[in-house]
Amino acid sequence: MDYAFYPGQVAVIGASEQPVSFGYHYLRHLIDYGFKGEIYPVNPHKESVLGIKAYPSLADVPGDVDFVICCVSADMIPPLLDDCAAKNVKVMHLFTARLSETGRPQAVEMERQIQEKATRLGISLIGPNCMGVYSPEAGLSFAYGLPSEPGNVGVVFQSGGAATLLIQTAALRGIRFSKAVSYGNGLLIDESDIIDYLADDPKTEIIAAYFEGIKDGKKFINSVRRAAQKKPVIAIKGGRSKAGTRAVSSHTAAIAGSNSVWKTVFNQLGVIQVRDLEEMIDQLVLFKGLPPVRGRRMGIIGGGGGKGVLAADLAEEAGLSVPPLSPEMRVQLKAILPAIWDWLSNPIDFSIWGDDAARAGEVHRLFWESRDFDCLIMQVSDDNPMGEDWWVIVVQMEVDSVIEMSRRQTKPVVAVLSAARPGFDDLENIRWRTIMEQRSRLTASKVPTFCSVTEAVQALAKFIGYWEKNK
Amino acid sequence: MDYAFYPGQVAVIGASEQPVSFGYHYLRHLIDYGFKGEIYPVNPHKESVLGIKAYPSLADVPGDVDFVICCVSADMIPPLLDDCAAKNVKVMHLFTARLSETGRPQAVEMERQIQEKATRLGISLIGPNCMGVYSPEAGLSFAYGLPSEPGNVGVVFQSGGAATLLIQTAALRGIRFSKAVSYGNGLLIDESDIIDYLADDPKTEIIAAYFEGIKDGKKFINSVRRAAQKKPVIAIKGGRSKAGTRAVSSHTAAIAGSNSVWKTVFNQLGVIQVRDLEEMIDQLVLFKGLPPVRGRRMGIIGGGGGKGVLAADLAEEAGLSVPPLSPEMRVQLKAILPAIWDWLSNPIDFSIWGDDAARAGEVHRLFWESRDFDCLIMQVSDDNPMGEDWWVIVVQMEVDSVIEMSRRQTKPVVAVLSAARPGFDDLENIRWRTIMEQRSRLTASKVPTFCSVTEAVQALAKFIGYWEKNK
Repeated sequence: MDYAFYPGQVAVIGASEQPVSFGYHYLRHLIDYGFKGEIYPVNPHKESVLGIKAYPSLADVPGDVDFVICCVSADMIPPLLDDCAAKNVKVMHLFTARLSETGRPQAVEMERQIQEKATRLGISLIGPNCMGVYSPEAGLSFAYGLPSEPGNVGVVFQSGGAATLLIQTAALRGIRFSKAVSYGNGLLIDESDIIDYLADDPKTEIIAAYFEGIKDGKKFINSVRRAAQKKPVIAIKGGRSKAGTRAVSSHTAAIAGSNSVWKTVFNQLGVIQVRDLEEMIDQLVLFKGLPPVRGRRMGIIGGGGGKGVLAADLAEEAGLSVPPLSPEMRVQLKAILPAIWDWLSNPIDFSIWGDDAARAGEVHRLFWESRDFDCLIMQVSDDNPMGEDWWVIVVQMEVDSVIEMSRRQTKPVVAVLSAARPGFDDLENIRWRTIMEQRSRLTASKVPTFCSVTEAVQALAKFIGYWEKNK
Repeated sequence: MDYAFYPGQVAVIGASEQPVSFGYHYLRHLIDYGFKGEIYPVNPHKESVLGIKAYPSLADVPGDVDFVICCVSADMIPPLLDDCAAKNVKVMHLFTARLSETGRPQAVEMERQIQEKATRLGISLIGPNCMGVYSPEAGLSFAYGLPSEPGNVGVVFQSGGAATLLIQTAALRGIRFSKAVSYGNGLLIDESDIIDYLADDPKTEIIAAYFEGIKDGKKFINSVRRAAQKKPVIAIKGGRSKAGTRAVSSHTAAIAGSNSVWKTVFNQLGVIQVRDLEEMIDQLVLFKGLPPVRGRRMGIIGGGGGKGVLAADLAEEAGLSVPPLSPEMRVQLKAILPAIWDWLSNPIDFSIWGDDAARAGEVHRLFWESRDFDCLIMQVSDDNPMGEDWWVIVVQMEVDSVIEMSRRQTKPVVAVLSAARPGFDDLENIRWRTIMEQRSRLTASKVPTFCSVTEAVQALAKFIGYWEKNK
């Protein structure tokens, strides 16, 4: 599979200059993402495609070809496989779809023929019916808008659309990827092969997986168990419900299993199961941004009374604890805040500070040095009732404070910054503009940041659960 | 209480020009929100405050005063009450805090004295320890950045910070408010009185409530039952957990009850219980944007295969159903899409359309006219793998389509548009800019819009559950 992630030469079968065609897109990606090896567009009707010399067939390409991206229709694949064999092709990605996933007998038979011939010729296949390979280090991509710089998350997704969304959306929160494979119908290279590869890949520190169905359960379980022993594996099972299972069959022709079985299996294998892409990204944000968190005691800072009460409720409901302030901490608080030391609690409610607000920084420091908490949550006080100018200063100060805490690494800390969803028109308002500016700052400073306490505590509970099992 | 929402005259005790003082803020709000009646700043050291003639004491104000906003410290309240009686004051809002919520015996005793004296003099009190009254129609507000135009949601929140966040954040999603009261310690006017008022208020069609604790359970239950029979009541109970209960006592000195008791009570009273502000806003969005939805059968449109599979899973897990396409619908689809009619399912997966993509609008129409679905979910296809130009067109077309569906009112429809959280710096990217522009369009067109399928289906399940009980 190294040949798929780091090929010396790539041929695009069906390369085109028509922007509605994937033969165009894949060639475009090789150029845009800066692929360093040889690029061979294959098109019987063109001298060149996108400024690169084209060849009428794969057989006409000079020398060997490591990796082939196939964007032509299914009936053209069997003869193409002969050309692949002649060119010593190691891996072919079949973007080509409309095979077994259609449920039509003719298409199922064609897929069987392709499988049989590729196996006989010793050519690995990724797909069919999938987006293929993203390998930013090598300059390979299957979509627009993916980061060109690599990171530490390896992706194995049956669905390419979902993989694209994951990578684009997670990138906004500072996550980068080592490589990604969308494997579709998984005809030869299946989920287990890719997991094995990512488990051994030194550039991959976390694995993010989306499965719809599994063809070889035993192989899969062995691969996942081995991978989960080496690094965190975060997985979504798609097709957990009746309607989802039906949708799976028209999507990737996979056989889905019942959710309760999957839950048990994932749990036994040490896999972190999440329900959707949003939860998956939350886990990636925590694994990237925090060291192991070895306990469930949360210190919650910031926000007014109502926010504090709700944060405590939500944290406990998620299975975390929010311990009261210890006598030692009271003594320290008394020295800083003689007027309100006995009235403060965890969560710390900013609305009772009055003239002592200027001492917030000192109290934050007490929290981050205290041994009473395993992790801190900074709820940015976007509920501050002062005028806009002051509000902006409070929000900035708290963001400064959490960035400082995070930089010091005294204790794991996450930020919660505003569940507001401004539209573009709302950015004229200083409030929403500030929120978005501070979100950029937090991301740039690598502070794990959530939009709501509910998200933060549910993600933390799952994350801490992982570290309880992996001491 | 009409005097609190529509006063003829308002006096601000402790009016000030210091922007750190709430005597400044409340006067500022009267000016900024365009209060039409008489405004009387009271300050013994000033001739005028913010350009308005000031009075050394309330007794010096000419004529009667309907409503007083009190921003001075607790020890000044007992003598002030005598002045209030002389001026025929109907309601006084005590922004003043540091009373029973501190847990200190002296403060508890002071609060008791205030209560006794106000009762004797026949003066209603809102608070102490609260933000007071927002009545956009009259030009009263307790915070910056609240909409100045009124709407149909009435708010009764123990916590003013949480009320402020609710109103500001919900406003971004098109929600407007008839009036809001933050009642803090609820010394005289309590949650039940406000609920009674909002239940009878013709301008209030939906009630949003946040309670931390209840002083008179029987009165409360009667008020809430009566209100819930008249209009939807959406409520958060703060202080559901051990830590939350502890936080409640330092916030508003209320006695919190266990969550299981509250759950049962709310359920029996027909109250829609939500866990946090985000869930509350989701319900407000649905109640504002949709007619009653009388069944659980969802038609899901848009998004690629992986998104469709997950949407079906998440919908079923939330208690909704995603029925397969009926034979009648297959016949209609065959006429439109002869190449793929048998392969399509619910959710409709755009990634298998190929050259038929141009016919999407016709298929959408089939869905919105079909009797097989009680509600439609349009997942905007932000996972479309085409180039940026095309991607923008697809997203716009789908937003056009859902706006058109919503306008026609043939069937309830909601949109799901991107869980991405761009920071300000990300808006240079056409993708995130487009998402935010389309969010503005959807809000302007009054289409209930969510950021993720999980949010949408969980909110819909709760909303539909309400209509099942209220036929």
